[in-house]
Amino acid sequence: MRVGDLVDRARGGDPRAVARLVSIVEDGADGAGGADGSAELRAIMRAIAAAAGRARVLGLTGAPGVGKSTTTSALVRAYRRLGKRVGVLAIDPSSPFTGGALLGDRVRMQDHATDRDVFIRSMATRGHLGGLASATPQALRVLDAAGFDLIMIETVGVGQAEVEIASLADTTLVLVAPGMGDAIQAAKAGILEIGDVFVLNKADRDGAQQAVRDLRNMIALADWGETGWKPPIVSTVAVRGEGIDDLVARLDAHAAWLESSGELARRRQARALSEVAAIALAGLRARMGGLPGEARIGQLAEKVAAGKLDPYSAADELIASMTAAPPAARLGRMPADDIQD
Amino acid sequence: MRVGDLVDRARGGDPRAVARLVSIVEDGADGAGGADGSAELRAIMRAIAAAAGRARVLGLTGAPGVGKSTTTSALVRAYRRLGKRVGVLAIDPSSPFTGGALLGDRVRMQDHATDRDVFIRSMATRGHLGGLASATPQALRVLDAAGFDLIMIETVGVGQAEVEIASLADTTLVLVAPGMGDAIQAAKAGILEIGDVFVLNKADRDGAQQAVRDLRNMIALADWGETGWKPPIVSTVAVRGEGIDDLVARLDAHAAWLESSGELARRRQARALSEVAAIALAGLRARMGGLPGEARIGQLAEKVAAGKLDPYSAADELIASMTAAPPAARLGRMPADDIQD
Repeated sequence: MRVGDLVDRARGGDPRAVARLVSIVEDGADGAGGADGSAELRAIMRAIAAAAGRARVLGLTGAPGVGKSTTTSALVRAYRRLGKRVGVLAIDPSSPFTGGALLGDRVRMQDHATDRDVFIRSMATRGHLGGLASATPQALRVLDAAGFDLIMIETVGVGQAEVEIASLADTTLVLVAPGMGDAIQAAKAGILEIGDVFVLNKADRDGAQQAVRDLRNMIALADWGETGWKPPIVSTVAVRGEGIDDLVARLDAHAAWLESSGELARRRQARALSEVAAIALAGLRARMGGLPGEARIGQLAEKVAAGKLDPYSAADELIASMTAAPPAARLGRMPADDIQD
Repeated sequence: MRVGDLVDRARGGDPRAVARLVSIVEDGADGAGGADGSAELRAIMRAIAAAAGRARVLGLTGAPGVGKSTTTSALVRAYRRLGKRVGVLAIDPSSPFTGGALLGDRVRMQDHATDRDVFIRSMATRGHLGGLASATPQALRVLDAAGFDLIMIETVGVGQAEVEIASLADTTLVLVAPGMGDAIQAAKAGILEIGDVFVLNKADRDGAQQAVRDLRNMIALADWGETGWKPPIVSTVAVRGEGIDDLVARLDAHAAWLESSGELARRRQARALSEVAAIALAGLRARMGGLPGEARIGQLAEKVAAGKLDPYSAADELIASMTAAPPAARLGRMPADDIQD
């Protein structure tokens, strides 16, 4: 099927067309097409560019076991009751043993399996980088262009991923649970500074009040500067739906603040900038790895390992050889403002 | 003081000169000099290139609370008894609240404060990237050139950092402790695949045998391929020094295997390659961020955010504008094989 037809059908609400586009994007961003995108992926991105930028993007992160899937599912239910179309991208860290996503309790998402206004996709992070799947920004764009009102990106808070989530999302939710030492962990991992809204889930457990106090103290200590938004803490028991309405209200308040303060435009500009930079860097990195780049960097690395050259001089030589070479065939293939929609 | 004098004094064993060099390197790699290195840093790297490559590099990682500092300290003591000079780089994730390193129980390192053949430095990760301090490879080079026999890099296992540690180290130790759900966490975070030697610390606690069984099962499930090295599990109670001699023996066995299998040369070549690539990418990224790159990427991002351009076409335009421009003044300033030592 042609890309244009798929895009039309996806925008008309056909869930299978959406699923197919996300799959193409996932393969094209990571796979055989090279790190800077397959031809098919690039065609899709051109076709949808004008239609994207309307959805609200919600990031949701936290340590394993805090109840991310349950909370996501409860939020999906709440937003569906409000008539919103909801997309979910669940990012699972790869396991070296399964070779794919640890689906965990994602099966609970089956609740929404028959609802065609809910789209759920688990994406595995590839390779050893530990971050978000590299196709996440592109998958987000597809759901956005397909007319989903709200897109949730859920990822386990181990390191890099939750920082990347914050750069993709309009609003970032950080989940903690009582008695897991989460508050301290959060501070260590730098997770606190990315939260727009904090959720103490499993708030019916021992230690809930203490955890809220700890979090509140940490938030009070932080310098929220001139932003005018101080992250609230919402207590929930997601498995029973408790506190979810309150959470939705806080999320709406944040959305309103984003709009009125100009922060939404700022965040989206920053998001576009880092997306462009990441793709450009991937392209440059691919060029390093490609012939003759690969031979060149290999020779330079050998000299560095042997103590014959320092790494900075080697990097200079590498850059000089890359930028001296004529741009690869892909460059300039397409006039920049040739947007098809 | 001139860089050449400092390098001479550091190589003569002067701890203050070593400390000063590491500080220059730390500031120069992260700071005002730009992401691809200050002039001073570059001068140091040229001066020491020929002297580096002799030290054994040991990476040590694990979740918070498993006893990394205690184990590091016990290993330092053991290697000092063997007459080795030992350097330690302890990488602390930055906290947005302290603005610097969470020193934690690094104070225990005070044990070695008066020993001039032990050098210990806590390095904070800067910014929000959550990984190793970007100056770590360069600080490692300084200690290596200064004649330390063994260099330990210790970092908390939250995400990216432990993967980076494995790429820097000859041998990577992964620490776990009983009853923390570490084994499962480890699998999720992909930590298992980076361990050359596993340490079950706090082995006197409840659940130690179960934790060893869990780990052993996971290691058995993994595909260790043709490498010929199957990671051993060593039980320790580092706070009382128990099991440390056994651990040292396993580390020596791994070092011997690295040498005899050719894996050491392979790892060091790979390390040099990724170091050169990282510096080159930082240089290219800086060029994107510099004028006129900054204005250019800003305009492109604005078009992307407004839906007038897709991110791949924007990246192509950015690369084309970068590679069309003449190389920056820094490039080619120094002949590549002008190593001063």
